[in-house]
Amino acid sequence: MLSFENDYSEGVHPAILDRFAATNMVQESGYGTDTFTKSAKEKIREAIGLTEATIHFLVGGTQTNQIVIDSLLRSYEGVIAADTGHISTHEAGAIEYSGHKVLTIPAEAGKLSAASVANYLQTFYADANHTHMVYPGMVYISYPTEYGTLYTKEELTKLSQVCQDYEIPLFIDGARLGYGLASPQADLTFADIAALSDVFYIGGTKIGALCGEAVVFTKQNEPKHFTTFIKQHGALLAKGRLLGIQFDTLFTDDLYLTISQHAVAMAMILKESMIAKGYPMYLDSPTNQQFFILHKDTLKALESHVKFSRWENYDDHHEVVRFATSWATSAENIAALLAYLPEV
Amino acid sequence: MLSFENDYSEGVHPAILDRFAATNMVQESGYGTDTFTKSAKEKIREAIGLTEATIHFLVGGTQTNQIVIDSLLRSYEGVIAADTGHISTHEAGAIEYSGHKVLTIPAEAGKLSAASVANYLQTFYADANHTHMVYPGMVYISYPTEYGTLYTKEELTKLSQVCQDYEIPLFIDGARLGYGLASPQADLTFADIAALSDVFYIGGTKIGALCGEAVVFTKQNEPKHFTTFIKQHGALLAKGRLLGIQFDTLFTDDLYLTISQHAVAMAMILKESMIAKGYPMYLDSPTNQQFFILHKDTLKALESHVKFSRWENYDDHHEVVRFATSWATSAENIAALLAYLPEV
Amino acid sequence: MLSFENDYSEGVHPAILDRFAATNMVQESGYGTDTFTKSAKEKIREAIGLTEATIHFLVGGTQTNQIVIDSLLRSYEGVIAADTGHISTHEAGAIEYSGHKVLTIPAEAGKLSAASVANYLQTFYADANHTHMVYPGMVYISYPTEYGTLYTKEELTKLSQVCQDYEIPLFIDGARLGYGLASPQADLTFADIAALSDVFYIGGTKIGALCGEAVVFTKQNEPKHFTTFIKQHGALLAKGRLLGIQFDTLFTDDLYLTISQHAVAMAMILKESMIAKGYPMYLDSPTNQQFFILHKDTLKALESHVKFSRWENYDDHHEVVRFATSWATSAENIAALLAYLPEV
Amino acid sequence: MLSFENDYSEGVHPAILDRFAATNMVQESGYGTDTFTKSAKEKIREAIGLTEATIHFLVGGTQTNQIVIDSLLRSYEGVIAADTGHISTHEAGAIEYSGHKVLTIPAEAGKLSAASVANYLQTFYADANHTHMVYPGMVYISYPTEYGTLYTKEELTKLSQVCQDYEIPLFIDGARLGYGLASPQADLTFADIAALSDVFYIGGTKIGALCGEAVVFTKQNEPKHFTTFIKQHGALLAKGRLLGIQFDTLFTDDLYLTISQHAVAMAMILKESMIAKGYPMYLDSPTNQQFFILHKDTLKALESHVKFSRWENYDDHHEVVRFATSWATSAENIAALLAYLPEV
Repeated sequence: MLSFENDYSEGVHPAILDRFAATNMVQESGYGTDTFTKSAKEKIREAIGLTEATIHFLVGGTQTNQIVIDSLLRSYEGVIAADTGHISTHEAGAIEYSGHKVLTIPAEAGKLSAASVANYLQTFYADANHTHMVYPGMVYISYPTEYGTLYTKEELTKLSQVCQDYEIPLFIDGARLGYGLASPQADLTFADIAALSDVFYIGGTKIGALCGEAVVFTKQNEPKHFTTFIKQHGALLAKGRLLGIQFDTLFTDDLYLTISQHAVAMAMILKESMIAKGYPMYLDSPTNQQFFILHKDTLKALESHVKFSRWENYDDHHEVVRFATSWATSAENIAALLAYLPEV
Repeated sequence: MLSFENDYSEGVHPAILDRFAATNMVQESGYGTDTFTKSAKEKIREAIGLTEATIHFLVGGTQTNQIVIDSLLRSYEGVIAADTGHISTHEAGAIEYSGHKVLTIPAEAGKLSAASVANYLQTFYADANHTHMVYPGMVYISYPTEYGTLYTKEELTKLSQVCQDYEIPLFIDGARLGYGLASPQADLTFADIAALSDVFYIGGTKIGALCGEAVVFTKQNEPKHFTTFIKQHGALLAKGRLLGIQFDTLFTDDLYLTISQHAVAMAMILKESMIAKGYPMYLDSPTNQQFFILHKDTLKALESHVKFSRWENYDDHHEVVRFATSWATSAENIAALLAYLPEV
Repeated sequence: MLSFENDYSEGVHPAILDRFAATNMVQESGYGTDTFTKSAKEKIREAIGLTEATIHFLVGGTQTNQIVIDSLLRSYEGVIAADTGHISTHEAGAIEYSGHKVLTIPAEAGKLSAASVANYLQTFYADANHTHMVYPGMVYISYPTEYGTLYTKEELTKLSQVCQDYEIPLFIDGARLGYGLASPQADLTFADIAALSDVFYIGGTKIGALCGEAVVFTKQNEPKHFTTFIKQHGALLAKGRLLGIQFDTLFTDDLYLTISQHAVAMAMILKESMIAKGYPMYLDSPTNQQFFILHKDTLKALESHVKFSRWENYDDHHEVVRFATSWATSAENIAALLAYLPEV
Repeated sequence: MLSFENDYSEGVHPAILDRFAATNMVQESGYGTDTFTKSAKEKIREAIGLTEATIHFLVGGTQTNQIVIDSLLRSYEGVIAADTGHISTHEAGAIEYSGHKVLTIPAEAGKLSAASVANYLQTFYADANHTHMVYPGMVYISYPTEYGTLYTKEELTKLSQVCQDYEIPLFIDGARLGYGLASPQADLTFADIAALSDVFYIGGTKIGALCGEAVVFTKQNEPKHFTTFIKQHGALLAKGRLLGIQFDTLFTDDLYLTISQHAVAMAMILKESMIAKGYPMYLDSPTNQQFFILHKDTLKALESHVKFSRWENYDDHHEVVRFATSWATSAENIAALLAYLPEV
């Protein structure tokens, strides 16, 4: 069965598989002290144009969000996020488990506006009673968002400014960072992301790796004893090479962005073809996740041939569904999917 | 440089690498719902002879200890462990981070005796003031222990009985389980481990996998909503196939025990050869970790050729060092190491 | 300066002060094992008509909410509350500190409707992805609400039924319980509160005590080793008599409800008088907290004579303010306040 | 029945009771912003001779230990304590509940030696593997100790120096501080305690108050937003006056030390009398807690007349018991107790 269910359906990019094979019997020390990890960090620093960045590799997205947020917040602080943000909805309370409240603000197409964040902060400090409230200690956004949408450089610059004004870090969840940067609509680069955020992560799991996210502290702001912190959270990999090799490969010859561009190109074909067939978009996503409104009958028929994500109810007769492409999606996959979709 | 530093210096067993390659483009759903994971669970149930066991795959050892312990204890409970136990010493407070005290008892060659545990529990309940103390809610042991030693079937049976008497679960940390079961000195089998414990894990990271530990609940005692609990702890892998494929391969054609036997055989050659050369053992380990007492001069000389672990100071002139073999250790490695070690 | 700032501005009801004096040199054991505490529990059980209820005395409201909620929820569960609920807004993240998410639903005049809770629960379980979300494990309401409003018996019965349908406990925060039950508009009794909730607390701090809240488990559902749990949360008072004496006195000769009725009567006079003077209510509260809309000029003038709470901005020229009466408010206090308020 | 069970058997010192009565109807704002609290802080600053000290009042000892330790430690840090320390044994895991390990060192008559702490710290940092271990982030001692013993000025100075050398705070649990300072054997003053520690607390519950402990940060090191932190831990009292009035009274006319001296004087009479009767001391305590070895037959006979604490088994025929005096112990109480004790 064909799957557009998500962007982590296949294994690993073949180039990484080759590197695993080529390096397999090399003996390395553990816990991220291996040479592959060192090399990968160097290459990422180069790609983002920030020599003073410090980098750590973690295994998965929820783990990364939990660790980054918990390491930068003090106990009495919470993290501001869009109400549609991943940490607000689909991480099973991982942030609260670490003791911190997620302070939600209504999203606009998955995005937080600088104005809404500024208003939240201003209102908080104006409240005479705010010592009895959770201090907003950080802003979390995802790029691209959970709805595939992108912040413009102007929007991100404004958000960054608000955070600077209130002296709280801006954290960018880049689980799908490549699919954002590689979008034709993106006006942001790796260097912009690094410059405008205090910490961000470069998602590997969804972009060619078996697992792995690269956390980047951009402002010489890595928390003290961060390795011990990671260990304490149960997230320090004994065979750090698993992550090192993958990111070293992804950041060799621009592989990360190249395969991201491919995924987005496939998504654009999918989008245009579906529009041409008469399917209404739920929102206009410029990245690898495409949200369409399908009649429930169409959906039911399609489900016997293709896996996809049922996102939410739209009305009595329609649902919002998501089709995700990835580095592994082929033009044949797209053609096969479209063949199952009748014109409306 | 040759390394006996630990049992996770190389990549992955070649059979697993082949399986990664062979299955790479198969599309699977995420979060452990893939067919490889299902198959791996079935094979493990068969290997341990327990059809009602429920199994979950996690990424690393500290994570596994934290999650298993936190999921089975109530807030007011702690976990009894040897003072040399991994959770007591080298997990950066991961158990305490999850809110639970590690209640330590002096170890005997790395082991907890049933008598000492029974005494602890009896004393606790006899204390008129015990409502102001941490309830002992679980017993944690490692097999083999952090010193490579093994519980006999009689010892484990007695420990298991004490736990049953006090109605608290017995948890076996099997980070190196294969290296224990494969020891010629072991009188325990997978089936015994499953029968005598309430929960245990089968270590993959140190025995042929890139990462991964298989948690086995043996008494239909899996905590409710355990998948959500794993997610909340940041430990649910999106590409569950990474773990499924590895354990499926390790439990095909008895690979797990076969490669464990190899590692132990290498360790026995190492041990006998070092004894023959006049090196005193720190303790007599029947598994893949060998602890010897080296003169500091010998140690210094050796360090320029070989990596190993400096365990602890022995006296002014000697240190305890550890040599670890693994599935990947070759006879040539052993010979090379021995060549660097002069007779004493 | 006259104060209507809150309902905990004075010390303690004189009857309690007398009891402190009368019993001061009686020697008692600690930690709630004293005879006053035992007697207080017995009297509360009688007042609520529930002989199998189990009762514990804690010191303050936030502490009580944190302990009750943390003791009844499993790690993967959160608590449903109104977005205006005290635990959602003004407890500095105490619930999240204990690891649990507050799952907010828009309030209607401070209240949660059974329909909105049912809808939340239904939607949650209908979501295919709910294993990645926080399980709703409890419903929290306050009676009276933070806006002084009251659930009717019918409303509470429906809410209770929804909780039973989903097998999750209903917890009633009764920080001002007396001021609710004593309202002429209330159609609920102590017995109703006990019958319709799984756990509730009877607020002392705001109703005549120096400190203290009585937690009542109504369905033989007290968590195991609850005293140890309280101790672990730093909330077990050495001199339990401090709480025992206070509640024993409050539940002697119906003092708790008698002084509550007085406070509400004072509030009703205040309300009617202010309405008569032309001040618009923000909402119509039948209890001891009265919310009015004041012009900012009026407010400024008033502030030099009277303390009150500035609740929130209403519009450019007006603010919502709260006047709270209590057991200690005299008719003279009310008259003095009104004298400062010009007709509108 | 006569009680020497502990030092919190009676109510409150009469002078405090009088102040409660005298101030009862004064209206004050909540949460520690009242005038009594301000005055009490001022008087404590004067008593300890440290104008820059910042002070907060909390309700009980376990709560205070939990909050102080959690507020000063980072997540990856634990607290060094004697294995007999209160936080190690009788606080139900309150420190671990807040995420921190208690790092125990064997006590000598209840005390931690500077040498043993220095050795612990040195060994920790010398361990090549210490990034996988809990960082020692604080030293906790009690003065007097749980065995009534006292640090000398020299001992405390050395401990303080070790802490300074390693840049970690020294925290003194002064649950019975007065009973220590008032001992004829003490060579430390309030000013010494303040100078040699980074944070300490002045116990009220056991010395004349109904409840309450005064936390003193001595080095302009109060954690940021400490009030919010207290609130989040459920420990912020609405009627802060309850604590303010008590400490204001205790620090008026030297009441705190005066009543402490009385308690110690009573304990000295008890000690000398028991020695004279032939009872062996378990250890020689110069403060209000006296530990004697009693034959089990004596103990049994005594129990029908007097309450005391059974501390631990001594041998088959004897137990260690504790008699505690307090501000409330009269010479008549002592005489009555002695009358029940036959000569040995």
